[in-house]
Amino acid sequence: MATEKHLSDDWGGDAKNASPDGEFVRDTTYIEDRIVADLPAGSEPIAQDNGAFHWPVEPGRYRLMAARACPWAHRTIITRRLLGLEDAISLGLAGPTHDWRSWVFDLDPEEKDPATGLHRLQEAYFNRFPDYPRGITVPAIVETESKKVVTNDFPSIPVDFQTQWTEHHRAGAPDLYPEHLREEIDELATWLFHEVNNGVYRAGFAGSQEAYDQAYERLWKAMDWLEGHLGEHRYLVSDQVTLADVYLYPTLIRFDAVYVGHFKASRNRISELPNLYGYLRELFQIPGFGDTTDFTEIKEHYYITHSEVNPTRIVPGGPDLSGLIEPHGRERLGGAPFAEGTTLPGPVPAGEEVKNPESFQK
Amino acid sequence: MATEKHLSDDWGGDAKNASPDGEFVRDTTYIEDRIVADLPAGSEPIAQDNGAFHWPVEPGRYRLMAARACPWAHRTIITRRLLGLEDAISLGLAGPTHDWRSWVFDLDPEEKDPATGLHRLQEAYFNRFPDYPRGITVPAIVETESKKVVTNDFPSIPVDFQTQWTEHHRAGAPDLYPEHLREEIDELATWLFHEVNNGVYRAGFAGSQEAYDQAYERLWKAMDWLEGHLGEHRYLVSDQVTLADVYLYPTLIRFDAVYVGHFKASRNRISELPNLYGYLRELFQIPGFGDTTDFTEIKEHYYITHSEVNPTRIVPGGPDLSGLIEPHGRERLGGAPFAEGTTLPGPVPAGEEVKNPESFQK
Repeated sequence: MATEKHLSDDWGGDAKNASPDGEFVRDTTYIEDRIVADLPAGSEPIAQDNGAFHWPVEPGRYRLMAARACPWAHRTIITRRLLGLEDAISLGLAGPTHDWRSWVFDLDPEEKDPATGLHRLQEAYFNRFPDYPRGITVPAIVETESKKVVTNDFPSIPVDFQTQWTEHHRAGAPDLYPEHLREEIDELATWLFHEVNNGVYRAGFAGSQEAYDQAYERLWKAMDWLEGHLGEHRYLVSDQVTLADVYLYPTLIRFDAVYVGHFKASRNRISELPNLYGYLRELFQIPGFGDTTDFTEIKEHYYITHSEVNPTRIVPGGPDLSGLIEPHGRERLGGAPFAEGTTLPGPVPAGEEVKNPESFQK
Repeated sequence: MATEKHLSDDWGGDAKNASPDGEFVRDTTYIEDRIVADLPAGSEPIAQDNGAFHWPVEPGRYRLMAARACPWAHRTIITRRLLGLEDAISLGLAGPTHDWRSWVFDLDPEEKDPATGLHRLQEAYFNRFPDYPRGITVPAIVETESKKVVTNDFPSIPVDFQTQWTEHHRAGAPDLYPEHLREEIDELATWLFHEVNNGVYRAGFAGSQEAYDQAYERLWKAMDWLEGHLGEHRYLVSDQVTLADVYLYPTLIRFDAVYVGHFKASRNRISELPNLYGYLRELFQIPGFGDTTDFTEIKEHYYITHSEVNPTRIVPGGPDLSGLIEPHGRERLGGAPFAEGTTLPGPVPAGEEVKNPESFQK
């Protein structure tokens, strides 16, 4: 969710993102359009009371613009793959680093997204809102033909993949957002956002020692709760994987690689916390999680883009993450990743493999 | 061994300390005077063929100027305490942070070393050499009355504490440099200096990604050798603690607290390497090692002084180091810290306790 630097970057040194006492405050204003199932394919977007629009579910019409590096985009990549939406919603991937103009399709030939021809993601924002004043963020859904951004409302995208795109899920797709658990998942998602997902940024972008110290205490209070909870529960909500786990994984998998050092979330590596580490190992080993994780792009993003934190822009060689493929032992807690009758996703579609697999990912 | 910034700081961004390809190169020119046993107390320093002087061993004449933060000074603090030289050689302690004028006695009342009245260590250097052009480093031995620096030759100070000050050792002091092991200890000390003690600085102060990558590989090759060696040997040389262990400990004890993150020596925390971690736990638990270690001053030194690496100067809250007091299990390898008939040092002398003990150090 890195954004235009002069607007609201994820760097807390920017006055727009720092409260007077140096606490990092994330810009949380997004394009709140949604893609919904109750409109006929081919229809134009319909204005809603809140000023946003609803767009129809329609295979082939939209492209998920993401970046392997970004934890908020990673949620949507995982959900798309768990549900088997690859044929219905295509995937465009920006490179890991960028300047203040935000994400660039520099991994593609001629640095242009092959489906839209976009060089910078901001073009899709400007195509829809010529004076778009806020952050150019991933994940964003773009209408492929018009090259206009439809939505960048990161909380609703995974939910709508599950609840609105149901007709286009693969056979055997799991229900990551079961109706009877939605309230619990939503509540946990809100807590995770404030305490953990954004908690690491609050520590890393603190503008003062005092703000950092508070952020560190707050983060580790939450991490300790998770470590305790996962000692008794195989997953966050219920005895199956839900969207809550999809929301936690991108932060956990970046923790030892980036947040411990770069963001000074340094009390423990996840590898030192047996329950969180077992949980992370299990998720990493489920298709859709580990096979969408590119540690090289993740490390390059943080260490090169945040030169205010890492002025040398040197990317660390470590940590050794090969323990992620060791047995996780989580079966002892009962449950199973997905409900009976559900299947795991198949192999990663050709062309969507991570570009920099670690030796232990091959 | 941090030094005057405009001369040769331990920050490798300084051209004087960087080779053309960005590799950090440490200034290794010191005042090579020594204090020796074969001159009568009270005598003046005697010029040697190499241009340095020899000074007589004489209790009460000299003061060891050190800083808890500095790994090179830490060696001398440990050696002084293991040998029980506290009554013969007094100890002055500079604070953890400083500007380009180097170490300051800002932990003392009125920011003056109580025994010499010095505010900055550089005054002792200038008292002896008014135009002293090189780094103002700790450890340094100062003649207390004249307030002149005698030597800052960090490799010879622990050796001379052992071999020249013998008459003033405590009863039951160990021999950390036994004659039949000196060649082996010296050889390992040289290797440790280049590959490990300075290897972490080479990684942390690399001026380019390529120089860093090489430094990281080189460091971890050495660390892997140590991990293997310490799986079969309780200590580095022989089955007792020697100066080689005194030289490795200050780097190891700073590793998880500073070098893993700040210097990007990130492949593993020591706590993930069973043999090195067991070895470090044992040393930490021996009087003279853990009780001379001040993690607060260590972290403040690196994170605040090296603003080129850490521009926010925020000091991390972690890591959790409480595992250092867990049982080490090293007895399985045979040997014992010190030879039969040798005793452990007694309690830390009053007034020399570390100022910021961790809860697990109390």
